[in-house]
Amino acid sequence: MPVPAWVPIREELRDEEPYGAPQLDVPVQLNTNENPYGPSDETARDIAESVLKVATSLNRYPDREASELRASLAAYLGHGLTADHVWAANGSNEIMQQVLQAFGGPGRTAVSFAPTYSMYPEYARNTHTRWIAGRRRDDFGIDVDAALELIAAEQPDVVILTSPNNPTGTALDPAHTRAILEAAPGVVVVDEAYAEFRRAGTPTALELLDAFPRLLVTRTMSKAFALAGGRLGYVAADPAIIDALRIVRLPYHLSAVSQAAATAALRHEDELLAAVDALRTTRDETAAWLRDRGLDVAESDANFVLFGTFEDRHAIWQGLLDRGVLIREVGPLGWLRVSIGTPEEMDAFRQALLEVI
Amino acid sequence: MPVPAWVPIREELRDEEPYGAPQLDVPVQLNTNENPYGPSDETARDIAESVLKVATSLNRYPDREASELRASLAAYLGHGLTADHVWAANGSNEIMQQVLQAFGGPGRTAVSFAPTYSMYPEYARNTHTRWIAGRRRDDFGIDVDAALELIAAEQPDVVILTSPNNPTGTALDPAHTRAILEAAPGVVVVDEAYAEFRRAGTPTALELLDAFPRLLVTRTMSKAFALAGGRLGYVAADPAIIDALRIVRLPYHLSAVSQAAATAALRHEDELLAAVDALRTTRDETAAWLRDRGLDVAESDANFVLFGTFEDRHAIWQGLLDRGVLIREVGPLGWLRVSIGTPEEMDAFRQALLEVI
Repeated sequence: MPVPAWVPIREELRDEEPYGAPQLDVPVQLNTNENPYGPSDETARDIAESVLKVATSLNRYPDREASELRASLAAYLGHGLTADHVWAANGSNEIMQQVLQAFGGPGRTAVSFAPTYSMYPEYARNTHTRWIAGRRRDDFGIDVDAALELIAAEQPDVVILTSPNNPTGTALDPAHTRAILEAAPGVVVVDEAYAEFRRAGTPTALELLDAFPRLLVTRTMSKAFALAGGRLGYVAADPAIIDALRIVRLPYHLSAVSQAAATAALRHEDELLAAVDALRTTRDETAAWLRDRGLDVAESDANFVLFGTFEDRHAIWQGLLDRGVLIREVGPLGWLRVSIGTPEEMDAFRQALLEVI
Repeated sequence: MPVPAWVPIREELRDEEPYGAPQLDVPVQLNTNENPYGPSDETARDIAESVLKVATSLNRYPDREASELRASLAAYLGHGLTADHVWAANGSNEIMQQVLQAFGGPGRTAVSFAPTYSMYPEYARNTHTRWIAGRRRDDFGIDVDAALELIAAEQPDVVILTSPNNPTGTALDPAHTRAILEAAPGVVVVDEAYAEFRRAGTPTALELLDAFPRLLVTRTMSKAFALAGGRLGYVAADPAIIDALRIVRLPYHLSAVSQAAATAALRHEDELLAAVDALRTTRDETAAWLRDRGLDVAESDANFVLFGTFEDRHAIWQGLLDRGVLIREVGPLGWLRVSIGTPEEMDAFRQALLEVI
């Protein structure tokens, strides 16, 4: 429904809808790539006790630099990174908006490679950055020759790569990442929201930070750290790049409560990341099962699987929903994406799919 | 220090500094208009217990609509408002950024009246909104004839009024607010961050919402609710205006932890607002004391007082800092702003000021 005529919203926004997957109340939610394993009671208590410690001083503004949290995030990432190399915000979408405010904007261009995360064009729209979407290969990998041609032609100020890619699960070939970093005239963002789920032997772009100072690697605590509700995204980059982001950030953007909760969750890295191994196993089993049913399945290094193809994917999606299983109708025509849940949830998904197909 | 040449930041940002008052560790902090009375142990426990209740489900994304919190905020505001009339974000600065993303932006103009909150031009810069600052009268009230002339000439898409104004403490004359609302072709934002501190008889712009659908009234829990560290700003407006903001908001911008903490704090309205009365008394005493010393003092409806004038205000500011009292060097040349602290903190301020003058 368009915004009424009397509301003086910018004209290009008038017919837009607020972004977001439907938040439906169904028994099996496999639609937003959440981690099905929540924090344990022990971790939850540590989070609440950490909030309690700051609660009587909430009348004071939070540490604008989030120094303790950034140091904890840097220690988690390793690779010789320090707090000065790390910046944190309310979800990696706030990070990405800050990146485009600092390095994109009017008169500037951002490039990505579709099919990819459907929120990117909205960040570009909100920051008035010109948006160019190149195409991926049929196997959802980057066509590096076409990518280099596009970069040479468009001279983008920002290139956004995604590894593992959403909604396809495809990891970047590090040789391709390097080639793009060498060719790109501006900054290159590698969105590694799902990095912890990648298969053994798949490298992270963090390894390239030393060699490429215009590289930014974004991460989130929403997925592997089971903290989607805590909204904590972060980015690793050269300290001078971080300083550029500090210019456009809103002051005190990250609450003392968020800083305390995220810092506490990071203390429980061992517990929270243990679930990642289980999810990787379940993912590989899910992909194998779908293939055994004769379906196409994209190779996935993430906590979801893209599968298809269906002549009427909406009918499949609706059939699953009718059976209490919510997945996501997203990605190239004919494909569907299922997030990896618990073994019980995946069993419900398999049973429902067998009935629907 | 400018951003290094190799960092491809937008050129207009290269020489900018991150916004924010110095965060210095001194005994008496009267520089950022914080409430000196933190939440009680009981309120702190309720905040932490509310976070504990959501902590084991933090693996799930938060309610994107923050429905419970918005209903609580509407109930607090009264005036017949419902959750549909209220929107919340990480501080009123995120609200203001969303307002300018929806209603300002490239090719659009925002108008305010200086001296006023020094962050507004940064919101405009970050959203590429053209920024025009009219002037206030010498007593810091709005010169309504000049304001109407400016609005007629510039036809601004956004007018930002501030009542009580920061850093002067000046409340808007409701007749002036009405006149500006009648003349403004776009939206009018009345920033009421300090509304709870206004003197008896000073009205709120909430009363005008029914008559003026293009009016937005912003509030914050940072000041009266002693929740600066919780970062919870909000706005009341027509539901169609709220819907416009939902188009530009980042999805899941407000964490489950923030929603739980703010909803809990609102349950302790009686306790938290009791401190407001004490602060109003201390403010009036502070203003009277400063006047008795022969100083000029702006009439204040806020939790701070602007006083002066000094030939070398920086020397006064530094002299106070040397004595452990941090105030803010802000506002028109020659003036200084002191936030209202506890009686003990104001005693330290008075002693230090007597020594410095």
